[in-house]
Amino acid sequence: MLAAAFTQSPHTLLRVGDGFDLTAIDPDSTPGFEGNKVDGSRLLAAFDGQLSELQERLFAASRSGARDAVLLILQGMDTSGKGGIVRHVIGAVDPQGIRHHAFKQPAGEELMHDFLWRVARQLPGYGLIGCFDRSHYEDVLVHRVRGLSPLAEVEARYGMINGFESRLVGGGMRIVKVMLHISREEGRARLQERLDRPDKYWKYNPGDVDERRFWDEYMHAYQIALERTSTAYAPWFVVPANRKWYARLAVQRLLLDALQEINPQWPAAHFDVDLEKQRLAGS
Amino acid sequence: MLAAAFTQSPHTLLRVGDGFDLTAIDPDSTPGFEGNKVDGSRLLAAFDGQLSELQERLFAASRSGARDAVLLILQGMDTSGKGGIVRHVIGAVDPQGIRHHAFKQPAGEELMHDFLWRVARQLPGYGLIGCFDRSHYEDVLVHRVRGLSPLAEVEARYGMINGFESRLVGGGMRIVKVMLHISREEGRARLQERLDRPDKYWKYNPGDVDERRFWDEYMHAYQIALERTSTAYAPWFVVPANRKWYARLAVQRLLLDALQEINPQWPAAHFDVDLEKQRLAGS
Repeated sequence: MLAAAFTQSPHTLLRVGDGFDLTAIDPDSTPGFEGNKVDGSRLLAAFDGQLSELQERLFAASRSGARDAVLLILQGMDTSGKGGIVRHVIGAVDPQGIRHHAFKQPAGEELMHDFLWRVARQLPGYGLIGCFDRSHYEDVLVHRVRGLSPLAEVEARYGMINGFESRLVGGGMRIVKVMLHISREEGRARLQERLDRPDKYWKYNPGDVDERRFWDEYMHAYQIALERTSTAYAPWFVVPANRKWYARLAVQRLLLDALQEINPQWPAAHFDVDLEKQRLAGS
Repeated sequence: MLAAAFTQSPHTLLRVGDGFDLTAIDPDSTPGFEGNKVDGSRLLAAFDGQLSELQERLFAASRSGARDAVLLILQGMDTSGKGGIVRHVIGAVDPQGIRHHAFKQPAGEELMHDFLWRVARQLPGYGLIGCFDRSHYEDVLVHRVRGLSPLAEVEARYGMINGFESRLVGGGMRIVKVMLHISREEGRARLQERLDRPDKYWKYNPGDVDERRFWDEYMHAYQIALERTSTAYAPWFVVPANRKWYARLAVQRLLLDALQEINPQWPAAHFDVDLEKQRLAGS
């Protein structure tokens, strides 16, 4: 049986463009997909193999000099499902082809450099899919909301980010920037689950409740950040994420789009195949 | 239907101990497992979930201060299936819990330090499963066979390795050292496949055929390395690997053994659960 498919491309529907208004996006919605959770899970599984093969081709091509890489940047409020994307979407790909990094509060040597320094050190090399769980966007989100940096400095960072990402894209990287968008109520329900299940206690941090007081301020900071840094070369996508299955499906599709655009090819032999067959037979 | 199970533990059967003789091990054999390929694939899949859960518990426990980590070291001749282990065994685990590194010929700054320096930089932190595709053992294998270092230096390295690994184990790491053991003929057949399939050309390197001339010398170097560095705290396991499905199954089992020995527990709440429920409800 064929799995239900997207009726419209998430790439178009979810992209942050002119007139973007975060408050107009319903976190419960499933843009471009009319199926239910079962349909969604089936479709996700149906494309695992393609994602995995495209990644292997990307890697193979890089061994022959292709200079392509993909960087997935995941942002979202606590419990928005960033880790689940890594586990269920990125998890389908060979670990050898992934460069994953979760950014925490900067510490030690990281504090002795500008905010993009530690990010640059975690970039995927050619042939790899990088996956950032949080990123340099924290420096214009939490820094703006909680005043961790002077406002003038935050204001200067949007341009620095655009310049940085422009350089990366110029060097062969496809950047897929995703905001996982959940509602305040869904966030509460997910934290509640962490308090109801002893095997989830370890994910709970009392500070997360304190942070919820700033929900509206965070949404405002996202609105500004997405407006100012959704560029032609590195657009943002807002993925409604109250339904985890939809968010995974949409991010998988965005990654597939990026890889299909690269369209990596198996490299030709850089040796004489017949000669090598003879040599091998005699070895 | 229950999957066929191991009749004897690979941990016992494959372990390198007194009187070890690599030439006595049949790369076609499937020690401790009487099933066929289909049985083996089924059993592998049946334990993916357990491996994944144990890794999550390991990670969770480390957030509360547990100082445990696992390091899988994969060694073996070209085409012995190291990458396949990463893809098919490690691939079942959440990418967030894995620290993978493939060691190539040392270059740049690596050459300005002793041979263990670059290895130390790639070690998994607490809560992670590290996976080394090749390792510091190359410095006593290819270096011995091809004379890349003076013999006296190679001879000194076995003790250095034991000292290094002893320190790691003392610090909470479980080291699982695996030699994937294929026959010379199987190695030829696998290289042949890379020459027969254009989507495999990129994995073929003419130098691999040249290296096959030293097959016996490599086996001798493995014999010495395994004898001298299979210790009580970090034993070697020789996994017959002509049948890929068996090798994957055996390595999965060795990893499960290591994790079960750690027996990581979900951490208790470090906060007042009822109080937090109240605070959350009001947020």
